[in-house]
Amino acid sequence: MELREALYTTRAMRRVRPDPIPDEVQARILDAAIRAPSGGNAQPWRFVLVDSPELKAELAPLYRASIGALWEGPYRERLLRAKADPDAAASRSMLKVQRSAQWLADHYEQVPLFLFCFVRGDAGAGSIYPAAWSAQLAARAEGVGSSLTSVLGASHPDDVRRLLGVPEESWKNACMVSFGYPTGRWAVAERRPVDEVAARNGWVGPLGFSVPEPLWPIQG
Amino acid sequence: MELREALYTTRAMRRVRPDPIPDEVQARILDAAIRAPSGGNAQPWRFVLVDSPELKAELAPLYRASIGALWEGPYRERLLRAKADPDAAASRSMLKVQRSAQWLADHYEQVPLFLFCFVRGDAGAGSIYPAAWSAQLAARAEGVGSSLTSVLGASHPDDVRRLLGVPEESWKNACMVSFGYPTGRWAVAERRPVDEVAARNGWVGPLGFSVPEPLWPIQG
Repeated sequence: MELREALYTTRAMRRVRPDPIPDEVQARILDAAIRAPSGGNAQPWRFVLVDSPELKAELAPLYRASIGALWEGPYRERLLRAKADPDAAASRSMLKVQRSAQWLADHYEQVPLFLFCFVRGDAGAGSIYPAAWSAQLAARAEGVGSSLTSVLGASHPDDVRRLLGVPEESWKNACMVSFGYPTGRWAVAERRPVDEVAARNGWVGPLGFSVPEPLWPIQG
Repeated sequence: MELREALYTTRAMRRVRPDPIPDEVQARILDAAIRAPSGGNAQPWRFVLVDSPELKAELAPLYRASIGALWEGPYRERLLRAKADPDAAASRSMLKVQRSAQWLADHYEQVPLFLFCFVRGDAGAGSIYPAAWSAQLAARAEGVGSSLTSVLGASHPDDVRRLLGVPEESWKNACMVSFGYPTGRWAVAERRPVDEVAARNGWVGPLGFSVPEPLWPIQG
């Protein structure tokens, strides 16, 4: 797959079929992940694949609780605003994300594969998220959808540690990535354009160019 | 460029030529970056390109101070160990990173472009690092080398805010990415193999497959 197609079309794909992901595909996903850079090339990471029904059955209620707490907590205001004005673009995006994330919570046990990404406590986020995102991009090239969330490890650190047998408190679960063959279609996700979110030599300095439309696919 | 080539060969490339990066290349880099996912698709980011000589001259001493503090602080023990046994693989890797990062500090003003990535305070690292890593991957396809560091914003948050005119404390500088045409060659970086850093259904559960050698380039 061409790089730009992957960068433009790898959006969160939470709704997936239960079909297992072959070992050789998993190997290509993980091997791409560990090529990512990390601070000082320390590779302060450990990756735990989860596909056991028993383990998924134990993690599922925790994930459902985390997601429920998200709707009631950090997302509460945004959801209330979205429900009050459901036709606004931001509202549609928010409600779409909620339905999709709730689907993942409701169907956690049926998702064929999860990847838990751990980082050693003294290392920064920049030493684990590039690897996680590389895993998602590599999965895209295999036709495997994925989505990343930090909410489970953040809200249930001790349970995650116990269930996955993490030996030391110095290892932190940075995120969990779900994988599966998607039921939906790949597409360029909706984003605010570069012009609105970037500047030059200062917070509001003119960028010097304009990118009103996505630069991929290339118009011929 | 093929995705896997980008994922395998985009390593930190800090030594770059002073040649400017054309606007259309910068546009492709930024436009790829903003396609990355973020929590709740909130896109809680702002990107500031820096190429002004005056601004680089003000940031350079701060970056040099951050890097100096890194060698004297978090990296002190690793560097002492590396210097005591310079031929060990881990030592060579550590000393190579130090020389490379010190080169960037010493030549900050000559690097043609920096991208400062900001994230709103309530958003997580997973909502900015995928975008930063996408920018680096997109740069790779353009023949542009890059490197990511969090140290400047972490050690000098107020100075970065003042110099870049960041209006609110709620915006945090997650990282800075340097860009330029590299003096070195693209190559697959050295990493510990998947077998050593991954497990299944537990911290030490058998992975079920082995990946002793990089799966790219594909051997024909």
